[in-house]
Amino acid sequence: MEAIIIAAGEGSRLRPEGARRAYHPPKPLTPLLGLALIERALLSLRDNGIRDIIIVIGHRGEEIRERLGDGRRYGVRLRFVENRRWRQGNGGSVLAARKALAGDSPFLLAMSDHVAEPGLLGRLLAAGQPRPGEVYLAVDFDRQKVYQPEEATRVVVEAGEVREIGKGLAPYHGVDCGFFLCTDAIFDALAEEAAAGRHALTDGIRALARLGRVKAIDIGDAQWVDVDDAPALREARRRLLRGLPSARDGLISRLVNRRVSVPLSGALAALPISPNAVSVTSFLVAVAAALGFAQGSWLAAGLLAQAASILDGVDGEIARLKFQASRYGAYFDAILDRYADGLIILGMTYGWYATSPEPWVWLLGALALIGSPMSMLAKEKFQALTGSPYLPERFDGHLRYLPANRDGRLFLVMLAGLTGQIPAVLGLLALMSNVLALGRLWLVRRHLEG
Amino acid sequence: MEAIIIAAGEGSRLRPEGARRAYHPPKPLTPLLGLALIERALLSLRDNGIRDIIIVIGHRGEEIRERLGDGRRYGVRLRFVENRRWRQGNGGSVLAARKALAGDSPFLLAMSDHVAEPGLLGRLLAAGQPRPGEVYLAVDFDRQKVYQPEEATRVVVEAGEVREIGKGLAPYHGVDCGFFLCTDAIFDALAEEAAAGRHALTDGIRALARLGRVKAIDIGDAQWVDVDDAPALREARRRLLRGLPSARDGLISRLVNRRVSVPLSGALAALPISPNAVSVTSFLVAVAAALGFAQGSWLAAGLLAQAASILDGVDGEIARLKFQASRYGAYFDAILDRYADGLIILGMTYGWYATSPEPWVWLLGALALIGSPMSMLAKEKFQALTGSPYLPERFDGHLRYLPANRDGRLFLVMLAGLTGQIPAVLGLLALMSNVLALGRLWLVRRHLEG
Repeated sequence: MEAIIIAAGEGSRLRPEGARRAYHPPKPLTPLLGLALIERALLSLRDNGIRDIIIVIGHRGEEIRERLGDGRRYGVRLRFVENRRWRQGNGGSVLAARKALAGDSPFLLAMSDHVAEPGLLGRLLAAGQPRPGEVYLAVDFDRQKVYQPEEATRVVVEAGEVREIGKGLAPYHGVDCGFFLCTDAIFDALAEEAAAGRHALTDGIRALARLGRVKAIDIGDAQWVDVDDAPALREARRRLLRGLPSARDGLISRLVNRRVSVPLSGALAALPISPNAVSVTSFLVAVAAALGFAQGSWLAAGLLAQAASILDGVDGEIARLKFQASRYGAYFDAILDRYADGLIILGMTYGWYATSPEPWVWLLGALALIGSPMSMLAKEKFQALTGSPYLPERFDGHLRYLPANRDGRLFLVMLAGLTGQIPAVLGLLALMSNVLALGRLWLVRRHLEG
Repeated sequence: MEAIIIAAGEGSRLRPEGARRAYHPPKPLTPLLGLALIERALLSLRDNGIRDIIIVIGHRGEEIRERLGDGRRYGVRLRFVENRRWRQGNGGSVLAARKALAGDSPFLLAMSDHVAEPGLLGRLLAAGQPRPGEVYLAVDFDRQKVYQPEEATRVVVEAGEVREIGKGLAPYHGVDCGFFLCTDAIFDALAEEAAAGRHALTDGIRALARLGRVKAIDIGDAQWVDVDDAPALREARRRLLRGLPSARDGLISRLVNRRVSVPLSGALAALPISPNAVSVTSFLVAVAAALGFAQGSWLAAGLLAQAASILDGVDGEIARLKFQASRYGAYFDAILDRYADGLIILGMTYGWYATSPEPWVWLLGALALIGSPMSMLAKEKFQALTGSPYLPERFDGHLRYLPANRDGRLFLVMLAGLTGQIPAVLGLLALMSNVLALGRLWLVRRHLEG
């Protein structure tokens, strides 16, 4: 499928911090968490399998073209179309792209200044292909979720069809999110409207809607913001960050780690730091914790372990924020984490033995080392066998209350450092991880049989 | 899809050991590696997704019906049809099943005395559905593979179509394996042949073949044997056992372990021992090895570790031989193996420390414990991420020559026991497993990116 992104307008209301500086970028190049708005649009299309993209430029178009190049860097193929009459309205920009489309099939139409999580496009694409003459419009029916509904383009929907569209409509059912699945029909409608002096994309959509040719596709709980001014840009940032914590987070992750890692990721996103570099940093901090324990510096070592645990969230968060999530990154992180865990347990054991040389602490340490990778092993084996992720909250029964996930284990390690109760925490880690692993042998049974 | 299994004939040539006993079972109930021939046919159908099965009985049919019951025990639904005139020929048995078919769609037709690996049915089913009037016949074109080709039913094939079929044909291209995908047409052909006094299934197939209605489906390298007499039964047993070793076996597995485990599985298959019971036994032998090491009984402990390694193959072999392979079994075995490995390393470390209390052996033990689960972790994570198994021979580069798989590691443990070189082997295990894990961080990169 091809896509058209409209990036021709001026967007003069958006001059966030740029307002005070001599230079401010054209609106589509406004940075948001390490990526320009239009880069987010490109990458969101790529993640939905759309790689042939036409970008309509106008105001300061050369700067945009220069930044994006041929798109190879983003894993897409870009073509640029210039609309010199961009001041007339965005309908003309859509019309300008007509001749650049390679095929006759339906195409996706997006605005460069609408920031949406990739799932929104997924919903629109999952609705299937519009028939000849039709257009699908992504609609947000959840008014609580719409940012500044008073400024939004509203739609009246009956039986799944858009009947009316425009600003200030009342009553209304939902809001136009700025993403469309189009057929050729949109060009004919826009051309007719233009002949009558109406040059907005909304005018074309309205004309088709009145013919019963616009279907409303519900975007469900997907988040999006139309970035028109600085407050909207801040809201988009807030929403992107708020979407980072996973539903599968453990208790410590939710209550402690994410509260630090999410703002940290937000700050780091603007820097050229790769997720794998963060994984390595987290690993090195864990190694420092292990060395600290080995030397008997309990307090510092405990705090370093917790810092490593928090940083362990940042790599994934940055990867998601910057469309850099990769299978290799997940693999790399998982293996480094297991080494970090093992070395910390080894450091605690060695450090305690060095101060009070009782060999039984090595037994505790060994049992903790045996149990330590079991949680991940069980989950990965389950996923490898079934193709679906292991869901602790569904499968683990009462054992799900054990703080035996990595966030919980490293929190206990921090407590060991703060209190000096090294052998007690080693024993607790050994007990918890092995009870969980052996319990799962039983619990997992009915999910893997039959 | 429905299936018909013909189990009506007498099969008087097959009286293996039964010949000297007062009782011998009817041919379809002849035991082969823990399952009756007809049970293998049922389970093979089930593993190919066919659960509605009609069994045509004749000679000693009540014994068969009593043994198989309604099929629930095998995960299938059975109906029985009696053919009192089974002496006339197997064509009549096929005809007898006509009225028992629930639908009009194509159905599978199999002989109860043809033992085949489930993959053979898979190939036949993958050929698609025969069109009305057609029959698909599974054909073995590899004459080297056919057992007793002089007694087989031969086929002449041109452009994928069977032109002629019968015993003693020459020249010929392949051999009828006794598995068919049929439409109604087979019944009409058999009825016509019967009216002319010809009552064999082959007669009906021949009639259709001469009309150009029988397509030959190549079974490729799938193994099968038509079990007509005691030597054929022994050959079937040999082929089933020969199919057990996996192409992904490590060196020690191939050269040592399988040579013991396969005959052992062959002997144990006849007993009511579940694969999970073997997994537990292997685990307990490993625990005995760990305790042996802990007590300083190096020699016995080393041999027990190698015994555990051999037994670790038996659970999977019995599971495959008896159609008892399950995802839970794979999970259970994987977790127990990791505990066994950990406890053996712990036993070696503790045992050595007890005789010569130098704390550095604990360091070696801890590093070996950290490295021990990494090989499995890496493979499972890879499979969880990609959906395809990790292939050491393809991905591991030169590291694939390290004996770092379980068979190699436990072989080294045995050598540790035989030579008393406990710390050396602990060091070797630590080194190998961690070098492999860290090497894979690099090697796996290009298989997970892009």
